[in-house]
Amino acid sequence: MTPLPEPVPLTDWISYRAANTPSRPALVADGRTWTYAELDADVTSTAQMLGGWGIKENDRVAMLLNNGAGAALLIHATLRIGATLVPLNVRLGAAELAWQIADSHAQLLVVDGRTVKLAERTRAEQPDLIVVSIDDPAASEARCERLDSRTSRDATLHFAHDPNAVLAIIYTSGTTGQPKGAMLTVGNFWWSAIGSALNLGTHIDDRWLACMPLFHVGGLSILLRSAIYGITAVVHGGFDAVAANRALDEDGVTIISVVLIMLQRMLDAHEDRPYPSSLRCVLLGGGPAPQPVLERCARLGIPVSQTYGLTETTSQVATLTPGDALRKLGTAGRAIYPNEIRVVMDDKDTPAGEPGEILVRGPVVMAGYAGRPEVTERTIVDGWLHTGDVGTLDADGYLRVLDRRSDLIVTGGENVYPAEVEAALLSHPSVVEAAVIGIPDTTWGQCVIAFVRLSDAPDGVDPSTTDELRVHCRTLLAGYKTPRDIRIVTAPLPRTASGKVQRHVLRKRLTQTDGPASSTAR
Amino acid sequence: MTPLPEPVPLTDWISYRAANTPSRPALVADGRTWTYAELDADVTSTAQMLGGWGIKENDRVAMLLNNGAGAALLIHATLRIGATLVPLNVRLGAAELAWQIADSHAQLLVVDGRTVKLAERTRAEQPDLIVVSIDDPAASEARCERLDSRTSRDATLHFAHDPNAVLAIIYTSGTTGQPKGAMLTVGNFWWSAIGSALNLGTHIDDRWLACMPLFHVGGLSILLRSAIYGITAVVHGGFDAVAANRALDEDGVTIISVVLIMLQRMLDAHEDRPYPSSLRCVLLGGGPAPQPVLERCARLGIPVSQTYGLTETTSQVATLTPGDALRKLGTAGRAIYPNEIRVVMDDKDTPAGEPGEILVRGPVVMAGYAGRPEVTERTIVDGWLHTGDVGTLDADGYLRVLDRRSDLIVTGGENVYPAEVEAALLSHPSVVEAAVIGIPDTTWGQCVIAFVRLSDAPDGVDPSTTDELRVHCRTLLAGYKTPRDIRIVTAPLPRTASGKVQRHVLRKRLTQTDGPASSTAR
Repeated sequence: MTPLPEPVPLTDWISYRAANTPSRPALVADGRTWTYAELDADVTSTAQMLGGWGIKENDRVAMLLNNGAGAALLIHATLRIGATLVPLNVRLGAAELAWQIADSHAQLLVVDGRTVKLAERTRAEQPDLIVVSIDDPAASEARCERLDSRTSRDATLHFAHDPNAVLAIIYTSGTTGQPKGAMLTVGNFWWSAIGSALNLGTHIDDRWLACMPLFHVGGLSILLRSAIYGITAVVHGGFDAVAANRALDEDGVTIISVVLIMLQRMLDAHEDRPYPSSLRCVLLGGGPAPQPVLERCARLGIPVSQTYGLTETTSQVATLTPGDALRKLGTAGRAIYPNEIRVVMDDKDTPAGEPGEILVRGPVVMAGYAGRPEVTERTIVDGWLHTGDVGTLDADGYLRVLDRRSDLIVTGGENVYPAEVEAALLSHPSVVEAAVIGIPDTTWGQCVIAFVRLSDAPDGVDPSTTDELRVHCRTLLAGYKTPRDIRIVTAPLPRTASGKVQRHVLRKRLTQTDGPASSTAR
Repeated sequence: MTPLPEPVPLTDWISYRAANTPSRPALVADGRTWTYAELDADVTSTAQMLGGWGIKENDRVAMLLNNGAGAALLIHATLRIGATLVPLNVRLGAAELAWQIADSHAQLLVVDGRTVKLAERTRAEQPDLIVVSIDDPAASEARCERLDSRTSRDATLHFAHDPNAVLAIIYTSGTTGQPKGAMLTVGNFWWSAIGSALNLGTHIDDRWLACMPLFHVGGLSILLRSAIYGITAVVHGGFDAVAANRALDEDGVTIISVVLIMLQRMLDAHEDRPYPSSLRCVLLGGGPAPQPVLERCARLGIPVSQTYGLTETTSQVATLTPGDALRKLGTAGRAIYPNEIRVVMDDKDTPAGEPGEILVRGPVVMAGYAGRPEVTERTIVDGWLHTGDVGTLDADGYLRVLDRRSDLIVTGGENVYPAEVEAALLSHPSVVEAAVIGIPDTTWGQCVIAFVRLSDAPDGVDPSTTDELRVHCRTLLAGYKTPRDIRIVTAPLPRTASGKVQRHVLRKRLTQTDGPASSTAR
């Protein structure tokens, strides 16, 4: 008896579609459409360019690119040559960037005209690193050669992939400590795509809009998932509410992945006009969403599915099933097939509704952190990824994500999850954005501070407004959860590229101006 | 670093859906609808009944049931208790049946009121075999206990499945020789479902009609695929063209799997009225389809996807992509992801368009034939399943299935594929059914004989009709392919449960009446 090969090798999805559905649209970017046949040809050319720079199997290719066709081609080409992609955040500081590239042991760094300057320090510190640009030298720098200036026709291309091969190493934004490179395998992305398809369905004429960065797991997984499904990935250069709305209204986009602030801006720009019925799913990630926004979407018939994911779980690992959007409003649904989620406190599963650390097991869990076996062993125990995030499971197993554990506020021995307080603030009609942090307090350990941006806030805010907000919170929350201090801000809150509020930035801002808080003084 | 478990265990799909989408319809059968929550509960009860009869992991449960809820529940329950299903054809002769059950080493045989008599001989020959019925004893036989008369609450139920576990052993109809039990694993069915989803898409409100027997790989795979997708399986008691049409017109069925004769009857009964747009795919298997039928469907806007599959490949392994139906009319498309197809003659891949044996490799290929390691080794070589079927691949890799190899006619050293001749006959407006066989010929080795059923054929056929048909064929085919003799029949041609023409029956019928043909006499 001939045994089945295990694991099953995965045929290259783009070459498969190029053979099966050559004329279907595969990619829309930079104002152009690639069919699967065209994408396949361009991915091969790009892979041969990587080969021209000496890149081969298991090498690491760092990508410092803004969203566009160049990034999409590089991502697919890196897989085709059997190398590992290291996508880098274009907003990194030069020092952070140099550190991550050194840590990743990348052989090649690919930049564009806008990021070439940022790579200057890396180039100085790592003279052996090859830095090439996808843009014209004139537009970038004369000293930087173009990626397409060398080509190897002898490069070994890969048209079947080992599910255990590392496809990408993505540095996690990590609010504290050094970033760590999460190793995501071919199998991780495959299972992520299949699990999502079994939850949301997949239609052969789907068009999935990526208006979040491709260097982020959210954007990257859209690109790979679309190729696995044989559908169209629509890649925007960045997020623009009007452009995103236009893609939904006029460009036949059926699925869009967003975080809360993006969705809010789109709704505002759309002025409560309904979206076309072709829009079949708004996948809302990046953190808990306040009830009023979800209810606003429900009223407009916008099919929102809240989702919960991490870099370490190859994007979404829990997603609310479309039909459950109203029944389980505010939860992130249940684990996508066939992954499992537990909520644990003191090594025991918590009772229904009780918060604890979110644990995840299944084929979307990363292979580990690159070069950090000890951290990996602490993070993945018996196959369970310890996310560090806090949430609850209800009696039906629906996950409600409360917070990043590092943001947990402990005041007078009571736990306060900032998201809960933020949701209360956001439920007030005047509040556009809210962020809650804990700051050291001599009496209570920590106390709760809120940052709030109001709609059409005047320069000088009426003090009665903060009183009104505090009363509003008090009607919804326990006293110890009600913010001790509410600060009205006029600028948008600081957020990561994926749209998460950077609470550590707010915390830093506060301590620089105030010093430690004293409860007696307030 | 904690390695990923390989192979990835597959969460039980029904219990997963019962937890995630409890109120979605899972099964329509016997005039009733089961939600996923209800199906899950009934599958557990049925599994506990199997436990009550002593069935446990790795045991084999033979099923001799007509289509209905009872069969659907038994199929799912057998997986839940970790046993292997042996689905048996209810049209078998008593001796064949006894042989297959003995060969399968089944511990339990489940019958219904209509099949209990058929199992009589098996019961006599295998006194240790437990035979139970899903119907009332009164309706069947007093001596046969009911399946639900025993229940074990202690039965170990399985809610995660090893992809390598054997889910079913299906005896192949095999036109010649003893039937062999193809062992199909959980992973085979899983990959079959995923490959199909990546080709046809999967919509969360899909309803897939199974009007072919569930004891057949075609029907069984519909039931399992629907559960994997979390959609609705609509199970008909048998095929009835009017009922099938009604399911498409009024019952929201979106996908239907048929063989040619079923499709023809449905089209005739529908009198060329269009079908609703909710019908998004007619999956046409069971053998090559004649061009005129496909063109008729194209004219009516019926989205036909021709497919090629075998028991040994867990149903479909090549399917025409919907958009290619017209461009590649008459082919069965390309291999479904991530399987591979080759066409080989004398150990070499044939040039494009040249016929050879169809070989298949990939995760839908069975684990082997139960208890027949030597046959398995001859059939699966280096992972490639030798199907024994004959086909061609065109320059784009599209498969055209010509015939079962055992039906190949060799006349004067030339190969004739019956399907090609049948297609020529079927392209004549008067021909309803056609079957072509080779019979021994003293001069040419074999000669080509056709059986033809005409529309509204009078009892006495005008001899000029057969002449006209022969001329018609001659305009389309080489002389050696044109039937030497065309026999007009008035009764439908003999077919297997899956709708394949039983050429061996025709061959037998002919030799019994004629004796060997002599070319000089014709």
